[in-house]
Order: sequence, then structure tokens, then C-alpha cells
Amino acid sequence: MHSFTLREIAQLVNAELHGDENHLVNGIASLQTAKHHHLSFIANPVYKKYLSSSSAGAVLINAALADEFSGNKLIVAKPYEAYAKLTEIFAVKPIVFAGIHPSAVVSETVVLGKNISVGPKAVIGENVVLGDNVVIGAGCYLGDDTEVGAHTELMANVTIYHGIQIGRDCLLHSGCVIGADGFGFAPTKDGWLKIHQLGAVIIGDRVEIGANTCIDRGALEDTVIEDGVIIDNLVQIAHNVKIGRDTAIAGHTAIAGSTVIGSQCTIAGAVGIVGHLEIADKVHITAMSLVTSSITEAGSYSSGTAMSNTKDWRKNAARFRQLDEIANRLYKLERDKKS
Amino acid sequence: MHSFTLREIAQLVNAELHGDENHLVNGIASLQTAKHHHLSFIANPVYKKYLSSSSAGAVLINAALADEFSGNKLIVAKPYEAYAKLTEIFAVKPIVFAGIHPSAVVSETVVLGKNISVGPKAVIGENVVLGDNVVIGAGCYLGDDTEVGAHTELMANVTIYHGIQIGRDCLLHSGCVIGADGFGFAPTKDGWLKIHQLGAVIIGDRVEIGANTCIDRGALEDTVIEDGVIIDNLVQIAHNVKIGRDTAIAGHTAIAGSTVIGSQCTIAGAVGIVGHLEIADKVHITAMSLVTSSITEAGSYSSGTAMSNTKDWRKNAARFRQLDEIANRLYKLERDKKS
Amino acid sequence: MHSFTLREIAQLVNAELHGDENHLVNGIASLQTAKHHHLSFIANPVYKKYLSSSSAGAVLINAALADEFSGNKLIVAKPYEAYAKLTEIFAVKPIVFAGIHPSAVVSETVVLGKNISVGPKAVIGENVVLGDNVVIGAGCYLGDDTEVGAHTELMANVTIYHGIQIGRDCLLHSGCVIGADGFGFAPTKDGWLKIHQLGAVIIGDRVEIGANTCIDRGALEDTVIEDGVIIDNLVQIAHNVKIGRDTAIAGHTAIAGSTVIGSQCTIAGAVGIVGHLEIADKVHITAMSLVTSSITEAGSYSSGTAMSNTKDWRKNAARFRQLDEIANRLYKLERDKKS
Repeated sequence: MHSFTLREIAQLVNAELHGDENHLVNGIASLQTAKHHHLSFIANPVYKKYLSSSSAGAVLINAALADEFSGNKLIVAKPYEAYAKLTEIFAVKPIVFAGIHPSAVVSETVVLGKNISVGPKAVIGENVVLGDNVVIGAGCYLGDDTEVGAHTELMANVTIYHGIQIGRDCLLHSGCVIGADGFGFAPTKDGWLKIHQLGAVIIGDRVEIGANTCIDRGALEDTVIEDGVIIDNLVQIAHNVKIGRDTAIAGHTAIAGSTVIGSQCTIAGAVGIVGHLEIADKVHITAMSLVTSSITEAGSYSSGTAMSNTKDWRKNAARFRQLDEIANRLYKLERDKKS
Repeated sequence: MHSFTLREIAQLVNAELHGDENHLVNGIASLQTAKHHHLSFIANPVYKKYLSSSSAGAVLINAALADEFSGNKLIVAKPYEAYAKLTEIFAVKPIVFAGIHPSAVVSETVVLGKNISVGPKAVIGENVVLGDNVVIGAGCYLGDDTEVGAHTELMANVTIYHGIQIGRDCLLHSGCVIGADGFGFAPTKDGWLKIHQLGAVIIGDRVEIGANTCIDRGALEDTVIEDGVIIDNLVQIAHNVKIGRDTAIAGHTAIAGSTVIGSQCTIAGAVGIVGHLEIADKVHITAMSLVTSSITEAGSYSSGTAMSNTKDWRKNAARFRQLDEIANRLYKLERDKKS
Repeated sequence: MHSFTLREIAQLVNAELHGDENHLVNGIASLQTAKHHHLSFIANPVYKKYLSSSSAGAVLINAALADEFSGNKLIVAKPYEAYAKLTEIFAVKPIVFAGIHPSAVVSETVVLGKNISVGPKAVIGENVVLGDNVVIGAGCYLGDDTEVGAHTELMANVTIYHGIQIGRDCLLHSGCVIGADGFGFAPTKDGWLKIHQLGAVIIGDRVEIGANTCIDRGALEDTVIEDGVIIDNLVQIAHNVKIGRDTAIAGHTAIAGSTVIGSQCTIAGAVGIVGHLEIADKVHITAMSLVTSSITEAGSYSSGTAMSNTKDWRKNAARFRQLDEIANRLYKLERDKKS
């Protein structure tokens, strides 16, 4: 565990330091749990009440709130962003194997950049290209003709099919599967006829992909994930989907085939988006909504019902089945009254 | 990339060829993006507008639309089915390792058919039986006493528990887990008591299973997936479920224990089906519906609400909690008016 | 397959045996399918009708129903619990490798208890501690500084990141990923800035985790799964979630960050729970509900709508968008009538 002086911390996030510049911190904690050797932060005024009693060794704080804390403080315009930036110096990064582990199986046709790490038991197919400083975790599989950009890291047990392109500075978590066949079949009198998926997956730079997430290869053209997209765990992205730059997708969301999602969207958890839609830029979808039509304007969208206790819910859910009838009977009453 | 003459293409799908039978194509593309060296197709009349301007080297088309395209054409009764069939010849199939890779760990009691491929780092347990032309991808695990039928392919990093039966001509995508324990526990005063799952999983012929999909072993009897079933990514199939022949299940759907689903059903994405139900043949369930009771007749079924902007949705969702009261007050107004 | 006399069975579950104490059984089956060599059980009076015709070699039954079955019977207070307990003796447990398989890659700094099994192709990082009788399946990955308690078993292809603590007597199914980064990013003018996840995951004793389930590491503090929790397949547990003792979570459920769930809750399949909530002890959530606010009292909670055929559903779902207006118009009619 490394320690840093508040002087060093202040320099890293360009903060105005008030207090003991030689005070040492070796971790980050919330205002309520921080001890003297911790850095803390206040990003939301709602936590102001914890400032007076916090034992934090220093607090990242904005100018407006600075007077509320009497200890060491680091004044910055955006405390949450400063906190995010500082997590990097406190993160425990396991040391990766330098070079190619002798238990890895790497084809002779692979093209390697400088300072590559290929972990134990990894398998790397023909004509794979790995950029400088790429880290391939233990047990990963990379199919033939796949390319991975510089500084990209694959955690253990990631599976990449053949012909996939992954950009620079990406992070792929364990168990994710990139490039499996899209779910394409033609109905015939003898059952389903497989449509071989001729496209690939193209992933931009600075993309993070969560554990056990699946991104399928395209049917004819490619599935595309643009730069800066962040995707949580257990997300399903079907063939020929395009996700625009800097869009964020939370866990357990499913996006069906050929849907195009704009940039800077935020899609909450367990959302479903049906196929062949277009979603504009800066759209927010709330948790567990189903999107069944294109969205042409930025804004927040939802579906579903509010939660109740199950007894009340049963009665209301039963009435939902009569909702059109209820509306029609109401309108009839209104008409009768007028006439 | 292979090239084919239109004569060869026409023979493969039994098409009536109009145009240059020596014209070469080396891929498939949509009408809008196809170039002179591409084959294209029109399966839906809605795309008719793209025919006149398409640069496709040839188009798979039915007789009714044939006059709308002036270039080379391949007239077939079912262009989508012909397209599906032709994807096979254009698919890039990575070459698999011939034989057992020296880094694989294969028990001495395994029974191997002809022309087997076992990839790097695969692990194969005792008494496993692999039929002719089976392909086991890199990093796969097959538990003891499992059987895999001829021409079945497991992509990289598939996990099969012990005692599982998989039929012929199946394709299992990376990360799928077949035969983990069903979620069976008895409540006791000391907490949950595990019910060991004594059944297995039986998978028929021509089944495709998506990436990271889970099919649990049965509690007493077996979980059964019949011939021709196709299952997308991240699907959960619980213990003792039975899925009838040629049923299709889209991504992120979850089917709870002991439910029996008929044949030729189409279950859209992110659907939930509770346990111990029976679903008839040819039932269609729309995306993200929850099925809480058995369905005895073919047809399409749904639940959920339509999407709105979040501000309107909040008001309507709040009213949902009052829906039974709203109905009762409406009916009282009607009664009062009559009396 | 082992056989047991009814005398042995009766002793194991402390049953009162009526019938042939030397009768042999070698498996468990339902009343309808059991043969003479099977043990069966009746846990729900609804199945009473099958008792008279059952060919079971013996039935676990409570005193109240005992007279309804004329064959061998084992009278116990809780037949379902007795059945659960007996599944263990009939379970086929594949023999695990004794010791460390030569193809595994185990760091020199690992601390091993007695009677450890490390399967083929497993990879175990620096300073990992494995308790007595731990079983690590084929292809598993354990990151540096992870600890696994005695008698805990990891099935094939499980991934554990660095610094994770797993208790005793746990069972982790294939494809689960423990300790991937929580989904934490700060929005900046240049896109999303990663918040490195400084916490870990702490898993108690007697926890079962399903196939392809993900439990993320905490942002600052740890994600915590208490003793006796059971989690099904494909569940997403986000950073800093705490799950109380003996809570059960069914397949495909997603729990967002920092939510605290009480003990002895039962959360059905495909439920979504948004972040930063508190759920009391003994709460039951029905399938596919979305929980958007804290729950302070034990009880059953639901959201969603009832299923209909799609044609009717479309009309009702369209009316849902007018629900607030419908309510307001109804209330106006009521007011007009009174005035």
C-alpha cells in the first residue's frame, strides 16, 4: 500500500491545499468511515452533515462547501472527478506476467507489439495482432485474425472469436464473449436454417466491457461499439447493433439485432430494446424499461409499473386487463352526461 | 475469400438464372451496400425501393418482384431461405486443430469417433464419448460420462458437467454452461438445505445454444432440449424444463423450473416464464413479457406497459397503483346513473 | 450406483419405518415415475392422488398421510427436508483429482491446506490461501491474495479476481465471475473517467453461487454476501451490495450498486432492484418485479402487469399511457355529480 503526501495529491488533481501538506494518506474512504490515513471527498451536498464529524485525513471539496470542514482540505471544482482520478493511484494492480507465459499456446503467425503480457493457459490463434503493452489474461482465447490495440487489457477467461477488432485502452472483464454468432435463422418447412454470420465486431478505443457480457458478430456487416462506450456485466448486444460514442449501458440490459443507439446515452440496468430501432443521442432509459419504438429526441424514457405489495398489485394487475374497457366506459359516461 | 459464378450459385439454391452466368461473386451484402462482386437478396417487399439503384452483382428475388431489378437475378420461391443457405459457402470457418492438441488433457477412458478435433487446453473427463467429426474448442471442459454426437461443435471455453447427453449437428457457443446444479434447496430451521440434483441434461440434434447461456441439470429426472431448438445468448433454463422441437428462444430469457414448452414456439428476448407451467405448441411471447400461467392455445401473448417519456410515465405508473379503485369508482358512477 | 436398505435410509433421516427393512433402493423418483428400486416422497398433499398407484419401493411421508400408502413407508415430520437430505447419498459425485494436477499453474507463494484438489489447467496467483479439502475445478482462475475456506468447491472455469475472500463449505458453479470491477465512472467533458474499484468481495460460509453469475468488487468498501446465501445462475450483484444471511436469489435477477438486502429474503427470477436501497428482512419479491424504493417491512412485493393475448394487451398498454388522464376525468365526473 503506497502513501502519498497531500502535496503530491494536490498536484495530481490541481487542488488548492489548505492544511498540512506533509500529511500522509494511503487510501480513500467515505466521510463516515474514513480514518486519519484516508483521503475522502464530498460530491453531493446531501452528505454535508458528515463533514463535521469525519476523521478523514483530508477531504476533496468544492469552494462552496470548504468552510464546513475544519481539517485538511483539497479544494477542487469537481470533487467527484478528482476522486475518480485519484482512485488510480490507490488501486491494487496485480503484477502481470512479463512476456508470454510458457503454458500459453500462441500461434507462430501472431504479430506482437512491445511489452506484451500473455498469461498462463491463454490460447492465441493465427494472424492475431497485439499492440504495445497489451495484457492477455490467463485462460483467454483469441480467434484467428483478431486485432487488439495498444494498452488494452483482457482479464482472465475472456473469449474473442475470429476476425474481431478491438481498439486501444480497452478493458474487457472475465467471461465476456465477443463475436459469437448472431441469432439468425430462416424458418423452413424442416425447421430453422442457420444463417452463417459473415460480419464481425468492431470495438473502438477506451471501451470497457463487463463480466459475462456478450457482443455478437454481424450477419452481413459488423456490430460496432464506438469509442468511449462503457458496458456493465451480463449485457447482451445482438448482431449489427451500433452503440454510439460515450454511451453507458448498465448490467443485464439486452439490445436486439440491428438497433442503432446514439452517443452519450445512459441505459439503466435490465432494459430491453427490441430490434431495428434508432435511438437518438443523449437518451436516458430508466431501469427495466422495454423500448419498442425508435426514440427521436433526447430525454428520459420509461415503461413498466410502480411496485406495490403483492396483494394490492394482484388486484391492479387484473384491472390492467380491463383498462381499455374501463376507458371506453368512462368516455361513454362523459358523452351521456353531455347529451 | 472464395468466388463463385452465378451458375454455381443458381445450382446451389435451384434458382432460375437471368443474366451473366459467369459473373463472379465473393460475398453477400444488403441491396444498399452491395457492390458488383456481391450477391444480394430481397426478402421483404419494403426494400423494393432499393432495387433500382442497387449495384449488386446479382439479386436473389422471387418471381413477383423480378421485373423490378434490371441486373443479374436468381429467381427463387423463397429468397430469404436461399440467402440463408448461401451464407454457408461465404462463411469464414477458422481451421480447427486436426486431432487432439498436445496441451489438451484427455482421460484414457475417452471413446473417440473419427476425425475428432480437440483444441488447446481442453479438458475431457472419464468415459466421455465423442462422435465422428466432433470439434471441441480451446479451453472447453467436459465432465465424466458426457456424450457428444457426431458433427457437433463446441466453441472455445464451453463447460459441460458430468453425465450430459448432446446430440448430433449441434453448435454450442462460448461460455455456455450445461448441467450445473438446478436451484433446489429445502428451507429448514438452520437455513437452506441443498437438494443434490440427480438428473442430467439431454440435448437433441441440430440444437444451437448461445454464448453464456445456462441449462441446469434436473432434480430427479432430466432437463430436455428437443431436436432443432435454437437458443440465443445469456438464456437461463432451469432444472426439469422441457423445450419442444424447433422452438426458438431469444437472448436474456429466463425459464423457471419444471416448465414444459411446446414445439415451434418463438419466445422473444428478456421474457420470464415462471415454474411448473405448460405452454402449448406454436405460442409466441413478445419481448420482456412475464408468463405466470399456463398457455393452452397457440397465439401471441404479452405483458408489460408501453413506453412513455419518464415524466408522463411517473404519473401513469402512480395511477396504476389506484387502478382497482378507479375501476370500482367508475362502476359505482354507472350504477348510480342507472338507478 | 449405490444401494441402501430401508433400514439404513430410516437411520439417516430418523424415520419410523413401516415395511421391509431389508428392501433395497438405489435412487429417488417422483411418485408417478418411481419403480420398485426407488425411494419416493410426498411433500405436498396435492400429490396424494398418486400414492395408491405408485410403484415406489418406499415413500417418505408424514404421519397424517401415512395411511394413504400401503407399501413400505418412512414416516418423518418433514418429508421434503428428509428427501433433500437423502439426495446427497444418491448424488453422482465425479472423482476429483487428488493433489495438484501437473497441468495447473500454481504460484510458489500459495498456502495450501490438507487434501486439496486443483484440477487440470487451473491457474492460481500469488499468496492465494486454500483451506483444507478445497476443490478447484479445471480451468479456474484465482487472482493474487484470494482466500478460499475449507471444504469449498469451485466447479470448472470459475474466475476469481485478486483479493477476494470466500468462506467455508461454499459451492461456486462454472462461469461465475467474482470480483470484476464495479461499474463506476465519473462523467467528464472528455467522456467517462474510470473509478478504480478499491474494495473487494467477501463471501461467507455455506454460500452457493450459480453458473455465470457475477459479483462485482466494491468501489471503496467491500461487496458482502453473508453466510447461507443461495444465488442462482446469471445473477448480477453490483458493487457494494450487501446480501443478508440465508437470502435466496433466483436466476437472472440484477441488483444495482450499494443496495442492502436483509436476511431470509426470497427474490424470485429476473427481478431488478435499483441502487442505494434498503430491503428489510424476510421480504419476498415476485418474478420480474422492479424495486425502485426501499422496503421497510417484511411481506411480498410486486410490479408489472398481468399477461394477456397480444391483441388485447396492445389496447390496454396504449390505455396505460392515458391512465392519469382517465383518473382525472373520472374524478371530474364524480365531482360534477356531487355539485
